[in-house]
Amino acid sequence: MSTEGARFVLALSATAVGVWREAVATPFDPRSALARIEPEPLPTDPDDAESLDVWGFRDTRFRARKDGVVELTGRRYELSGQELPDLLRWVQDTIHPDVSPHDLNPAHYPPPIPPPVRNPAFLEELQKIVGADQLSEDPELRLRRGHGHTLEEMWAIKYGSLPRVPDLVVWPQDEAQVEALVQSAVRHDVVLIPYGGGTNVTDALRCPEREGRTIASVDMGRMNRVLWIDPVNRMACIQAGAVGRNIQRVLAKHGFTLGHEPDSVEFSTLGGWIATHCSGMKKNRYGNIEDIVLDLRVVSARGLLDRSAAFPRESVGSADLRRWMLGSEGCFGIVTSAVVKVVPLPEAQVYGSVVFPDFESGVRFLYELQMQGNTPASVRLVDNLQFQLSQMLKPRSTGLKQLESRLQRLFVTRVKGFALDRMTACTLVFEGSREEVKAQQKSTYALARRYGGLSGGSSNGQRGYQLTFGIAYIRDWIMNHWLLGESFETSVPWNQALPLCESVKRRIREECAKRELAGTPFVTCRVTQLYPTGVCIYFYFAFYFKGLVNPAETYAEIEYAARDEILRAGGSLSHHHGVGKIRQRFLPRVHSPGVATWARELKAAVDPSNVFAAGNQLFSNPDA
Amino acid sequence: MSTEGARFVLALSATAVGVWREAVATPFDPRSALARIEPEPLPTDPDDAESLDVWGFRDTRFRARKDGVVELTGRRYELSGQELPDLLRWVQDTIHPDVSPHDLNPAHYPPPIPPPVRNPAFLEELQKIVGADQLSEDPELRLRRGHGHTLEEMWAIKYGSLPRVPDLVVWPQDEAQVEALVQSAVRHDVVLIPYGGGTNVTDALRCPEREGRTIASVDMGRMNRVLWIDPVNRMACIQAGAVGRNIQRVLAKHGFTLGHEPDSVEFSTLGGWIATHCSGMKKNRYGNIEDIVLDLRVVSARGLLDRSAAFPRESVGSADLRRWMLGSEGCFGIVTSAVVKVVPLPEAQVYGSVVFPDFESGVRFLYELQMQGNTPASVRLVDNLQFQLSQMLKPRSTGLKQLESRLQRLFVTRVKGFALDRMTACTLVFEGSREEVKAQQKSTYALARRYGGLSGGSSNGQRGYQLTFGIAYIRDWIMNHWLLGESFETSVPWNQALPLCESVKRRIREECAKRELAGTPFVTCRVTQLYPTGVCIYFYFAFYFKGLVNPAETYAEIEYAARDEILRAGGSLSHHHGVGKIRQRFLPRVHSPGVATWARELKAAVDPSNVFAAGNQLFSNPDA
Repeated sequence: MSTEGARFVLALSATAVGVWREAVATPFDPRSALARIEPEPLPTDPDDAESLDVWGFRDTRFRARKDGVVELTGRRYELSGQELPDLLRWVQDTIHPDVSPHDLNPAHYPPPIPPPVRNPAFLEELQKIVGADQLSEDPELRLRRGHGHTLEEMWAIKYGSLPRVPDLVVWPQDEAQVEALVQSAVRHDVVLIPYGGGTNVTDALRCPEREGRTIASVDMGRMNRVLWIDPVNRMACIQAGAVGRNIQRVLAKHGFTLGHEPDSVEFSTLGGWIATHCSGMKKNRYGNIEDIVLDLRVVSARGLLDRSAAFPRESVGSADLRRWMLGSEGCFGIVTSAVVKVVPLPEAQVYGSVVFPDFESGVRFLYELQMQGNTPASVRLVDNLQFQLSQMLKPRSTGLKQLESRLQRLFVTRVKGFALDRMTACTLVFEGSREEVKAQQKSTYALARRYGGLSGGSSNGQRGYQLTFGIAYIRDWIMNHWLLGESFETSVPWNQALPLCESVKRRIREECAKRELAGTPFVTCRVTQLYPTGVCIYFYFAFYFKGLVNPAETYAEIEYAARDEILRAGGSLSHHHGVGKIRQRFLPRVHSPGVATWARELKAAVDPSNVFAAGNQLFSNPDA
Repeated sequence: MSTEGARFVLALSATAVGVWREAVATPFDPRSALARIEPEPLPTDPDDAESLDVWGFRDTRFRARKDGVVELTGRRYELSGQELPDLLRWVQDTIHPDVSPHDLNPAHYPPPIPPPVRNPAFLEELQKIVGADQLSEDPELRLRRGHGHTLEEMWAIKYGSLPRVPDLVVWPQDEAQVEALVQSAVRHDVVLIPYGGGTNVTDALRCPEREGRTIASVDMGRMNRVLWIDPVNRMACIQAGAVGRNIQRVLAKHGFTLGHEPDSVEFSTLGGWIATHCSGMKKNRYGNIEDIVLDLRVVSARGLLDRSAAFPRESVGSADLRRWMLGSEGCFGIVTSAVVKVVPLPEAQVYGSVVFPDFESGVRFLYELQMQGNTPASVRLVDNLQFQLSQMLKPRSTGLKQLESRLQRLFVTRVKGFALDRMTACTLVFEGSREEVKAQQKSTYALARRYGGLSGGSSNGQRGYQLTFGIAYIRDWIMNHWLLGESFETSVPWNQALPLCESVKRRIREECAKRELAGTPFVTCRVTQLYPTGVCIYFYFAFYFKGLVNPAETYAEIEYAARDEILRAGGSLSHHHGVGKIRQRFLPRVHSPGVATWARELKAAVDPSNVFAAGNQLFSNPDA
């Protein structure tokens, strides 16, 4: 694993542990004046350039060599530079035999990009607010800010087109500029769509096709500073445009972490986390975004929303701004900064894994683990198909390592009687003091044994956890090989979890069969979060699309059917992805008409001319 | 301690432990159908009648005998029936020498009650919606629903009057009746003020004096059922009018608890907890109300707000109803029921206490305790004056017990060198499995020793915790002895906590001196909640008022000054009491004008004719 990966995934180096010790060793002086650290801004790293046409860093792509071996370019992930000899053959066996390095579906990026709708009076005013380098009409930059990472969007930019994208990109550099920009947009009836990392998977950034006004994308990328860290009171104030990996780097230098690690943490921003009501993989220890954000500042169409200070906990009703902005998906205003909780870097971080004879045993184990309390920071259970995939994503083993790996497999299958086509795996991340971690490991593995689980080792756990960061790369890569795939999530009470997994998988297979899709659809799920009341479940679905006239549309139809099945089976509309535009058609099924009336009236009250016209959720999407 | 007290304070009996074992022993079957328990309604207990003129149960009052010994009537608390020989003398020494059983300030309850403002058309319609026994114009019932428990309100009903009270009380018995009632109120321009336990301390129920329309108090007391308990998914659905002590009793019968114990838990309701954004004493284990409520149903002026089901966690933006109703203080609609998290009754519950040489050592200990994690369910630190008061509230000791108590005091003061006028005490409640409790006790007491703390024993801890339930009785009783007293709270970051305590106490003393109040003002504080980022602090303030022309007004002026000082010192406007009307004048100091605009516009959008015209927070109080 290379430096950059290590920086954000582990966030724990020898230096950091030193800082941690110092931070913890300094006794608290209740009479000390407030000592805030004001971190230096991070230098821009040219190696961190991101792709425009696919997910991720520009240096990282999967590719299939002519001999069928798959490689990951670059040096930043554990897999980078490694050879995956078995992956392609497994895909052929599992999904469709024609998947091959010799039969590609070349992308046509960039697609045709519509010319900008101009508002000269607004543009003139804007040029007085921001500098010339803070404005652009460049087509590719506009295109990138007109989509997130849904399958349909990524398909559109590579094989189709987007009918409407922002007409202008603005990069404000401070809150005063955001205020002036919003006031100007109100005066000139211009639409503003805030832009963070562009990683959403709900069509939240997609511009309503029928929006005739000028749309300005407000890219928060230059408001990316950790403004201060308060080490005694465990808070930090961070600008909304700061990207997850950079927040982690800056905080770690001073011995702290947010602990917030959504799958997109390399690219997504604090503002985006707030707007989507984000969940992080280590929420068992650090909480979800609503547990982390203490206070925030917002520029709205009706002025700046701001408070005197951030407090540990309050009862101030509507004056608590979090309630308006968490999950607002760009429709209520622009978050400029937030005060968040920070936690000292953990003394210890240990990965782990457990293999179970089947998915059901794993779910039983998860339930008991949650109910006994003291749950590891991250616990995730993959089903058998995903377990198989993860085995195929192991680099080529050689010599002793290969022998060891073979022996392990023999033990699990021959001695323990696990079936390779039934067994599942759970990845674990333990964080805390050495003692805490030790105690958690002990109780977790003891419990796992009661459900037939066998420890799968630390390196498998680490690989499993980090696979998360690779999956989005895979999704974009396999489109070249005539495979369309995507993920979607839900939350569901415990006793409905297993029936839901089964009925959603069945429904997807039925929908594929009905359409006579070639090959075998790839349908798999994992449990990614535990709560006392239930779980978050992620589904992955992929199919071979060669020969289909409109594969993205076919995909969308099946995802729609899968969501229908999720709702029938007692799942929620969204655990953390949000509603955006992709799920708004389902809203009338999950709440009464009164809720819709409230949402629309509230929106009209605080944004009467609909400046923030992203059109997500219940808010006036002219295309809907 | 008698049965009733035991029922809600301990919530843990031999039977309950049996139920707990059974609940935990049943293994989770992920294929089981949803098995919901539908508990029987509780029979009404005539012993549970509440006073109209003072806080609490009718059977419980403090009184001073002619010989100066103070007694608590009734049988429900540990103190009930006991003699307090030292209390009155201590009050004389500490506050004013003239406090005596022979010089009383008799109350004149009930005060004059204004005649009802009638709306015949509404009344006619209402009589078709509810039965005759669900409506009343009785003056005392109307009076009771026109106030909470602020000092000024309690003073007014005993020594003054309330200029405006509800004109009518309605007791709906189901959600359909609430809907019809709200629709009728909209049609006839009638004001509705929802009523739960009537325990708020923010003037939230006080009727705006200039409200000329008919005001109907909607008493939720008949919607008091635990509708279902889902033991597998750890949820329960409870009607908003259910009172805390009854919720605890019903859940405990089935092996569960909410764990939510605000000081008012004997009388306050689920709906009230939601409306005030309540905090419970054991939040370290069970969370505050926002952590407990999963979903709710609301009748608003624009219809019923309702959702398909409750989920473990979601990202659905404005469709999450909690954001509108938590802390809404009656101004947005009527909560009819909520789905809440439930937790199995803890296997073990142990009280504890630690004495520290001074308040500062205690605060240092609390900080470390919070930062090391694994904090006991409840941790509270009283200052020296409150520690002294708690000693005076000990019943008369006799024989061996007295000797033991004397020896303890000698050890602490002579051997350890603690000063009786400096030492402080921390009360602890540990809950969890036996192992968890043991581990928490070990680490907590070890840490306490590092800060000079000495274990004060379990019975002192239990007494300290339960004093909470007695304090409100004391407040009303001492008015008869020419003493006015009240509490108020704030939250503040750790490093501002101690300076805030000191400056608020100083300010109160200065304000008393300025007014040349007789005797010595009683000014004391305690830390009642810990967070990673800071604490909740409670202040108690009392003074001798004989000879003052308008003592309640004097009190209000000084509390206002204390709040001014709290805000200056970096404290919040409220930790959990809320804003109501008593703190609304401070709102412009804690947020920007944009926040006020938002709040007012949002309110107007969802309640255009201001049916829910309680006038709290920022919402159109015509008197303000």
